Amino acid sequence: MIGGGQLARMTHEAGIPLGIRFKLLSDTPVDSAALVAGEVVVGDYRDLDTLRAFAAGCDVITFDHEHVPTEHLRALEADGIAVRPGPDALVHAQDKGVMRARLDSIGVPCPRHRIVSDPADVTRFAEEGEGYPVVLKTVRGGYDGKGVWVVRDEAGAAEPFRAGVPVLAEEKVDFVRELAANVVRSPHGQAVAYPVVESIQVDGVCDTVIAPAPELPEARSSQAQRLALTIAKELGVVGHLAVELFETRDGRILVNELAMRPHNSGHWTQDGAITSQFANHLRAVLDLPLGDPRPRQPWTVMANVLGGDYPDMYAAYLHCMARDPQLKIHMYGKDVKPGRKVGHVNTYGDDLAEVRERARHAADYLRGTIQE
Amino acid sequence: MIGGGQLARMTHEAGIPLGIRFKLLSDTPVDSAALVAGEVVVGDYRDLDTLRAFAAGCDVITFDHEHVPTEHLRALEADGIAVRPGPDALVHAQDKGVMRARLDSIGVPCPRHRIVSDPADVTRFAEEGEGYPVVLKTVRGGYDGKGVWVVRDEAGAAEPFRAGVPVLAEEKVDFVRELAANVVRSPHGQAVAYPVVESIQVDGVCDTVIAPAPELPEARSSQAQRLALTIAKELGVVGHLAVELFETRDGRILVNELAMRPHNSGHWTQDGAITSQFANHLRAVLDLPLGDPRPRQPWTVMANVLGGDYPDMYAAYLHCMARDPQLKIHMYGKDVKPGRKVGHVNTYGDDLAEVRERARHAADYLRGTIQE
Repeated sequence: MIGGGQLARMTHEAGIPLGIRFKLLSDTPVDSAALVAGEVVVGDYRDLDTLRAFAAGCDVITFDHEHVPTEHLRALEADGIAVRPGPDALVHAQDKGVMRARLDSIGVPCPRHRIVSDPADVTRFAEEGEGYPVVLKTVRGGYDGKGVWVVRDEAGAAEPFRAGVPVLAEEKVDFVRELAANVVRSPHGQAVAYPVVESIQVDGVCDTVIAPAPELPEARSSQAQRLALTIAKELGVVGHLAVELFETRDGRILVNELAMRPHNSGHWTQDGAITSQFANHLRAVLDLPLGDPRPRQPWTVMANVLGGDYPDMYAAYLHCMARDPQLKIHMYGKDVKPGRKVGHVNTYGDDLAEVRERARHAADYLRGTIQE
Repeated sequence: MIGGGQLARMTHEAGIPLGIRFKLLSDTPVDSAALVAGEVVVGDYRDLDTLRAFAAGCDVITFDHEHVPTEHLRALEADGIAVRPGPDALVHAQDKGVMRARLDSIGVPCPRHRIVSDPADVTRFAEEGEGYPVVLKTVRGGYDGKGVWVVRDEAGAAEPFRAGVPVLAEEKVDFVRELAANVVRSPHGQAVAYPVVESIQVDGVCDTVIAPAPELPEARSSQAQRLALTIAKELGVVGHLAVELFETRDGRILVNELAMRPHNSGHWTQDGAITSQFANHLRAVLDLPLGDPRPRQPWTVMANVLGGDYPDMYAAYLHCMARDPQLKIHMYGKDVKPGRKVGHVNTYGDDLAEVRERARHAADYLRGTIQE
């Protein structure tokens, strides 16, 4: 796996029972996954020679993030390396312009959008629809709210162009909530769909995930799952595909973003599903039969633990374990910095309000925003 | 953790979400746990200097097996190292003579037993009770049926004495089945008890575990749990304690063996309990609050996967995953040798017969004893 973040850490964890030899290419020896994996190569994923040397010892390579240059992945494929997801699929998670064009071509509903050339062009885009505000995104390099701007006028539209990267304009969707439809697909085409979840963002960062999405009509849930399965098939995705969705006020489902790797919206599956997204991602990229994606109980809630003002979370950690012996804590081994994702908690049970309160309490207590 | 077997492998797996830095002392770099752990020291656990150098970097040391010499553990404790379970407790899992004497002194029911000096003394022991057969055990060094003999006459009683180790004689208990009562205890005395399980042995090796033990009367289950909690407390155990029990034909519960580490009879907890034995062992030895030991569904069955005649299990592995997408496979990364424990499977659900058949089928298919 290329990239040493928490997704790689949790993928290694899931690979241990599967008997998988997990080799990691990490930026540093102290990245989240590098702290716990057995075979760690420290190197730069932007360097093709490093990638080639790393990949030579692997049956298949897969990813913790989308940042490996597409042309390097094509070079590895040309060398005969199994790259999963392959560059022809992954480019749709790397480049939002390519993604939107492709989803349009296969008839997947998206927010109104087009590539814009300068602030004046943003105003023209706004006037083609409902006017400002408009969402601007650099087509590459964004994540967790970075590389995304909501602009209210032409003057505010200048900044996204400063990076010299193509800029995509999108309508600001009037959504009631965000959903995620997560599926996993194998090289030979087997696919499984997890229950559609509700994803609650705070400041552009995923905060809470509720599985399944409460009060989502069965027809809309099926529509979202079919949409994700169609995207996975049409784009040739291998591995876990997260399709982030807007549920609009008028009852439509629009695709927001794609990620072709384990995803924050699927962390609930570690404790809430029969097979976790991490195990199924590995099973897919290794072309093993996929595991059952169904939930193990009525409700599971995931809440991210962000770093707070106190670098030492140990006392809070003890308190949360003692308060709720059913709490499932997942720490990433990272130094605490304010706002940094340092872990998450999962809770599950029959009563959504109670399950949600337990997750919320633990995440807030670990961050230090509550003291009781 | 000292010892690189599958118990250490699965303990490391359980430690990843807890954010624990896991350091391993392993006999070789290719032991089961050494293949997946981040910090591996290769060295001999029988060498005190090696132990001292290893322990110097640890907040606490714990064990994959009982084979570290008791006097070395006392030396580490004298150095100020936190050894959990400590030598004063662990000696009862290392030396069956010490264990029996201690259990007698605290009134725990055991099979009739005493240390015997030679074959003639075995005959005297037999005549003190119901006669032959008699079970003989070397007081140290046995596991999985090794170091245990069932002898039918005085001539057959010679072999156990050849090792020059003290020999314990025990009545051959007329049991209807074997049970295990597993508990976890913290340094400050918090303890949790897992449901009592039935353990089915084949040729002295654990084959299948059913959780909870079917048709075990509530009173007997509570008695077994209380017995295990009493032993943990009286012996000062820290960490996971497995108490292997005989359920006799006349309805008594007798202690067979003790293990002070995660144990084969607790592997079902990985997929069947809210908190696994591995996570709770770590929480105990690190003096963290313990997790909920309750089962997540009515029945869980664990079946060990033994190596068969075919070294390549890959095709069987694919078949089992495809046949049962709910199957939880746990492989140890070991080379396949006939009869060697190379993994286990867990199944769970509402219908014991179906759950048991699924586990049995997968274990037999992986071993190669069935082909369909």
